[in-house]
This record gives sequence, C-alpha cells and structure tokens, in this order.
Amino acid sequence: MADQKEGAGLPSEFELIRRIRTVLPEPDPSVLLGAGDDAAAVAPGPGMTTLLTTDTFVEGVDFDVAFSSWRQIGWKSMAANFSDIAAMGGVPRHALTTLCLPAHRTAKDVEALYAGFRELTRQTGLTVSIVGGDLSSTDGPTVVSIAVSGEAAEEHITTRKGARVGDVLCVTGNLGASEAGLRLLQSAREQPVAERPADRFEDALSRHRTPVPRVREGEILARSGCVHAMIDVSDGLSSDALHLCRDSGVGLTLNGTALPVADETRRAMEELRLDPVGTALESGEEFELLCAVAPDRVDHLAAELAERTGTPLTPIGECVSGDRGCEITDHTGRRPLHPKGYDHFGS
Amino acid sequence: MADQKEGAGLPSEFELIRRIRTVLPEPDPSVLLGAGDDAAAVAPGPGMTTLLTTDTFVEGVDFDVAFSSWRQIGWKSMAANFSDIAAMGGVPRHALTTLCLPAHRTAKDVEALYAGFRELTRQTGLTVSIVGGDLSSTDGPTVVSIAVSGEAAEEHITTRKGARVGDVLCVTGNLGASEAGLRLLQSAREQPVAERPADRFEDALSRHRTPVPRVREGEILARSGCVHAMIDVSDGLSSDALHLCRDSGVGLTLNGTALPVADETRRAMEELRLDPVGTALESGEEFELLCAVAPDRVDHLAAELAERTGTPLTPIGECVSGDRGCEITDHTGRRPLHPKGYDHFGS
Repeated sequence: MADQKEGAGLPSEFELIRRIRTVLPEPDPSVLLGAGDDAAAVAPGPGMTTLLTTDTFVEGVDFDVAFSSWRQIGWKSMAANFSDIAAMGGVPRHALTTLCLPAHRTAKDVEALYAGFRELTRQTGLTVSIVGGDLSSTDGPTVVSIAVSGEAAEEHITTRKGARVGDVLCVTGNLGASEAGLRLLQSAREQPVAERPADRFEDALSRHRTPVPRVREGEILARSGCVHAMIDVSDGLSSDALHLCRDSGVGLTLNGTALPVADETRRAMEELRLDPVGTALESGEEFELLCAVAPDRVDHLAAELAERTGTPLTPIGECVSGDRGCEITDHTGRRPLHPKGYDHFGS
Repeated sequence: MADQKEGAGLPSEFELIRRIRTVLPEPDPSVLLGAGDDAAAVAPGPGMTTLLTTDTFVEGVDFDVAFSSWRQIGWKSMAANFSDIAAMGGVPRHALTTLCLPAHRTAKDVEALYAGFRELTRQTGLTVSIVGGDLSSTDGPTVVSIAVSGEAAEEHITTRKGARVGDVLCVTGNLGASEAGLRLLQSAREQPVAERPADRFEDALSRHRTPVPRVREGEILARSGCVHAMIDVSDGLSSDALHLCRDSGVGLTLNGTALPVADETRRAMEELRLDPVGTALESGEEFELLCAVAPDRVDHLAAELAERTGTPLTPIGECVSGDRGCEITDHTGRRPLHPKGYDHFGS
C-alpha cells in the first residue's frame, strides 16, 4: 500500500481515512471527541439550541467535474449546509462528511475535497470541526453528503414561519449570478479556449463554484428583533419566497424590477441572452438570505447590515393577505408567482 | 401530479417530501422544530453531551434489493447508526435521512424505507425523531445516508481508548449470524424456491436483514463503571478488536474457541461449509458490542446485563501488554490476528 501511485485509483479504506485525518484541522474545544471513534462527542454551548441540517451533492446532478475542481466541489457542498444554518440565524459548529467514491477517484481528489471544506471554514472565519463521516465505494457517480450541526439561542432562531401582512420581503446581496456562472461554463464548452468568458465574468463563475454562505448576515438579521421569517435562496427565489409565504400563511407582491442583479451578472446575462428577472427568480444555490422585515425597520436594518458586513439588503416585495396569493409585478404587469426552481425528479 | 400512478417512477420532489412527512412519526418534545425548515432545532438534554455519527448504505455495495425489502433496508441503515451511538454508551435522539434515488424507484419504495426507520425505532422502544434530510436524483445506485445525533452524560461516554492490560474482552450476544444470513441468501439464488433455507434459518436471515442495535446494553455497560473501552462489531470482530486494542495501546489474546456462535448459526455454517471461527471473526454488521471489562467485575456485569436485557455477555479474550501484539488462540495453536473485515476499496 505504501507504494500506491497517485492517480491509480483509491488506496484502502483505512489508508484513505488516515490521509483524510492528516488534512483535517485541529478540532476546537467544543469537540470532546473528534473523528476516529464510533461517534463524535461535542458539547453544546451553554443554553444553546442545536440546529441540524444535511445536504447532498451528486456528480452529474448537482455538480460537474468539467466545471469545478474537487476543492470547489468540497467548498460548495459544505457552503450549502452552512447556508441552511445561517437561514435559521445560527452558526455552524460541527460537520459529518460522507463520500461515495467510484473506483477511478483518487486519494488526491479526496484530499482536494477536504481542502475545500477547510478553506471555506477558514475564509468565512468560522470555527467548524469535521468530527466524523463515512466512506463507501459505489458503481455510480461520486456522492458528497454532509450533515452539519450548528447552534443558536432559542429566542434568535428564525424560521420560515412568522412573516406578517405588511412585512417587507428583503434579500441580501444579489441574485442570478450562480445560474449565470453555470450557463457561462456550459456555453464555454462549445467555444475556443481563448474566447472563454472566465476572465471577464470571474464573479459569476465564483458565485457558481464557491458561493459564500451568509452566516454573519444571518446572525445579525436573526438578532435584530425585526426579522419575522427567513429562508436561504437554494431552490430559487420564486420557490423559496413561496415556501416562506405559504409557511407563514401570507401572500406576496414581489417587485420584479427591484430584484438586485450585479452589473457583471447583468452583462453576462446579456451575452447569454438570459432574461435578468427570470434568471434572478429561478437561479438556485444563490445562498442569499430572504427575510420578512417589519416595514418601519427596513432602512435601519439595511444600514446596520451594510455597516457591519458590507452586504446590501434590498427590499423586493411586500407580504400581503394570504387570500391575495403570491404575485410578481414588473413593467409588463402583474402575474402569479410560480415555483420554478430545480426539481430533482423532474416532474 | 395527483393522478401519478404507483410504480411509474418518482413523483415530484415536493410531492415526495409531502408523502414522507405523512409517514414520519410525531416529533418528541426535544424537537423544537422538525423537518420542513432550512434546519431542525433540537434541545439537548440538560447537562448532556451530544454524540454525532453517520452511516451510508449504497445499493449493490452495502445492500442488495434481491435479498432485502426496502423496509428492511431502512431498518438496517438506521440500525447501523443507532449501533454507533450505542457503542459510545449513548442513546440516539434525532436523525437526518438522505436518499439519492434513481428514476426507476417509486414513492412506495421510499415510504417502505421510512416505515423501516420507524419500525426499528418503535421495536427498540427508543424515542428518535427524524428531523430532516435531503433528496437527490442520481444516475447511479440508490444511496441511503443517515446522520444521527444522540446523547450521553459526559462521564458515561465510552470510547475505543481506555482498555487496560488485564481487562477481559467481552462481546454481547453472538457472532457470525449476519454473514451466515447473507451467504444463505446468496446461495439461495441458485436453489429452487422450495429448498430455500429461509424457513430453517430465520434468525440468521433476520440478523442480516434487520439487526437489532444494542442500545440498552450499551447504556448499561457504559454506566457500569467497569467497562474501560467499547466498540460495535460493524467491520468484523477481528478488525474491530484491533481498532479497540490499537487505540488503547494494548495487545490482545483472543480465545477463538470462546467466540459465541448461536446453534442455528452453527447449523447454517455447516450447511454452507463455513468455518465458524473464521466467520465469527470476519462477519461485519453484527452490531454486537465489544468491550474491555475490569477482570474482577466480568461475572457480575454479565449477570446484570442478562437480568436486565436478556442479552449474554461472553468473555472472549484478554488485553495484554502492547508489545505482545494481537493474537488469536484455538485448538490449532496461536497466530497473529489480522483485520479481515470489509474494505470498501478492496485493497
């Protein structure tokens, strides 16, 4: 085994576990017992509630190795979990990482995945320990399945329920970049290397490959006392706005002309002949936070968020009475809002 | 969607989630927020430490739909996680369930999986709430990936480290039945239905299909004050005994003639021409508990365990000085103990 060559497939399971352990960061003091036993033992912060979430990325469905490196795939699959915790107003603390690996994957691929996990944690300034996981072989595509536990004070947990009639629906950052990045990569397949758009649209590409979850923003929003409901934009704005409104029992008038789209993303959309409003509505894995804010507090909250994180908070609609349903208005008029995000089973 | 026929593949993701929710049991009071938001929120018991584990089952690698129903596959994949928590001396409390589903799977298959999760929990008398999960399509085999959080008082957590020279290595229940059950099912493929061994070896088959994790036993062992290290037999006795001894820095003399094998399993092994000692050493997914016990407390502990749970505890070896290594003795003499469990990457 010691002479196993790089790139010649996977080493033994125990050798692979050994190599993974060498790239894991030191566990933080909340980890009483890290990876290497039957289960990990972690101490919840005093008085904190535990948040649990999981997200799975399947090769060929959720990622394409032609578009992203294993480091980027590691980053993004962990980021999706952090974003779920952020959407509750919590902070991610501990992760379990599971890989199903076909025989042609290599130890280098696996190490790159873990480098991505670690880099995301470092660059977001979070303290998240990988405390365990599982490895399996597979005859199918690579699967990266992550479960994360986070924590929040119970009184700060912000769910999808709780939006009130009159609340202003707001979104952090900007929308559409993840989908634009994916489309750029897909279109680049048919273009000569020299004309590839990577250099010109670096932000959209990185939003697709290495999105930054809004953890700090989620904490600030949840603690503000004026955010009544929150969700992250993972399925697509239209789907996620509908989830929030249905769970809260309110309707929605979404202002299509107010959807924040970055200038660079808008230029990429023009080049790709994508409708900016439609793309902003449907783009999944944006990992922006969508929240319902008390109307008299929006300006103050946006100013606070911008000051503390640099992230804008944009009003994009109004919560209305449930019997009015969910609609979108723009220069063409008013129409019902439909869920248009990704359905894994295509129905 | 409402008219979607059973057996005609999967309904939409949201419809499938809706159907899964209808079969989930009511969450217990520790669940502040169950499935349906970005993350679940759970309250750890006062003063309890949280245990985290995950186990993944891949079709064609970890299970075969020709041998087990989806209900049985659900049961077993959840049982593997409960067993990991049991091996720490803890009690499972909350689960996240992830499925990667190829297009030919049906909503009925998924509902059967969840029925298996629920049935295990009910039959073991545990209170475990499924608080979330993820669904993905896949072009490959079905993947069932589960993460479980459990709890234990910190002073009762029992790890693989801690076995002392002179400790008696003991195992709960009996060994080899899981492997025997699998071999019976494999051999039955080539036999006429009338001659299939299912009726005669029901126990071995159910040990392979629906093993019962030793949660109550794990709690009793961990709280006894005389169990210094513990692990569950998931890779195979030889591998797991080596893990425990290496992590504890001790050697081992395993008594091959003492390995407990049930009479029915022994008869199945005879029919299958399997060596009982070799099979007992290598059989994985036994989910028995292996523990290092203070020598003067073994008899009392075994009596207590039998009285409170009906489960026998059998001494099978002695922890010796690390420089003596790990050996097995039987009527043929003494030889080194080698790890012979399953390696996912076959090296």
